[in-house]
Amino acid sequence: MSLLQDLSWRYATKKMNGQVVPEDKVDYILEAARLGPTSSGIQPFRILVIKDAALKAKIQPIAYNQEQITSASHLLVFAAFDEYTKERVDAPFAQQEQERGLPAGFADEYKNNLFKSYSSQTKDQNFQHAARQAYIALGLVLAAAAEQKVDATPMEGFVNADLDQLLELDKLGLKSVLIVPLGYRDAENDWYVNFKKVRTSKDEFIINL
Amino acid sequence: MSLLQDLSWRYATKKMNGQVVPEDKVDYILEAARLGPTSSGIQPFRILVIKDAALKAKIQPIAYNQEQITSASHLLVFAAFDEYTKERVDAPFAQQEQERGLPAGFADEYKNNLFKSYSSQTKDQNFQHAARQAYIALGLVLAAAAEQKVDATPMEGFVNADLDQLLELDKLGLKSVLIVPLGYRDAENDWYVNFKKVRTSKDEFIINL
Repeated sequence: MSLLQDLSWRYATKKMNGQVVPEDKVDYILEAARLGPTSSGIQPFRILVIKDAALKAKIQPIAYNQEQITSASHLLVFAAFDEYTKERVDAPFAQQEQERGLPAGFADEYKNNLFKSYSSQTKDQNFQHAARQAYIALGLVLAAAAEQKVDATPMEGFVNADLDQLLELDKLGLKSVLIVPLGYRDAENDWYVNFKKVRTSKDEFIINL
Repeated sequence: MSLLQDLSWRYATKKMNGQVVPEDKVDYILEAARLGPTSSGIQPFRILVIKDAALKAKIQPIAYNQEQITSASHLLVFAAFDEYTKERVDAPFAQQEQERGLPAGFADEYKNNLFKSYSSQTKDQNFQHAARQAYIALGLVLAAAAEQKVDATPMEGFVNADLDQLLELDKLGLKSVLIVPLGYRDAENDWYVNFKKVRTSKDEFIINL
């Protein structure tokens, strides 16, 4: 199947059937997120994976009782850096220098200018920038899930502060951005299954200059 | 090739060779963006496609003279809604009702609550939310390009206000978010070609709860 066929197959599944997604498929989907690009290669977010039924049940009311939270076998929580600290900006460059066999300090000028730029922004501006990067991975996770014929439902609809508190994300320097339940569509009971995919027309969506 | 193989193949190409990407491949890549999901299905962004050499040359200094701006055959500019107006929120729901054969007014409650929610936010908050949606499409565009063995370089590094002015995006109610040059790597002269892809380790990137 091609990516376009995969994207046509997927939809924001409203009802899942409780079937468990095999771990090798979950790993594949997460690897797509990890391999994706981010601004300056910082990867300023993490993905939390939740399988525990009790914990999913606690999250459900925080996400307006959406039923996929508990009928999904795996819940992915994308959580972004709450700010860009010097340590967080430095780390990927040190890793790059090491893994690419480059001289130590090779990236210092770029790295220092980058940190200077982030330092001139508010903590919230940094978080907003980090959160955007998580959306690149969201696109890749949805594409990977569809390729594996795993259903996924991107969700912004939850009370971020409550989820942060429940998962104690502040201790990790993270703030929640997105939830993605992974599972399998309940094709007999999800009436969205048969809905035509509706999108803005090409003529309106694409502007040729 | 699988998505993971495609993601391993791609990199943020620094030098392109000027070869022109065929229009059917560009169409394919754009279609991945159009088919992607967005919050409540609003698709609050557009993609501008620029092939004109003179216009690309004008954009280059706005993007810190990055060379891919002119050595790419196609320049994609992702531009998000500058705010959520009632008209913009209503349009996709009217289209859904029509294309899915649903009764008129079917989505009114959801739609009205959604607009009420956006109305309670500032114009900039609305733009920031719209901009995030463009990053989902960025992920899909990069995956589609890699599948088609087309090189692409995601860029945030440009002066947004200057690009908005040059392209008169205010007349379209849009603000620039991202630039993605499409072309082909100059494998002999782009020393990034052979760099190992460096990513945060799985142990650090994935947090199993």
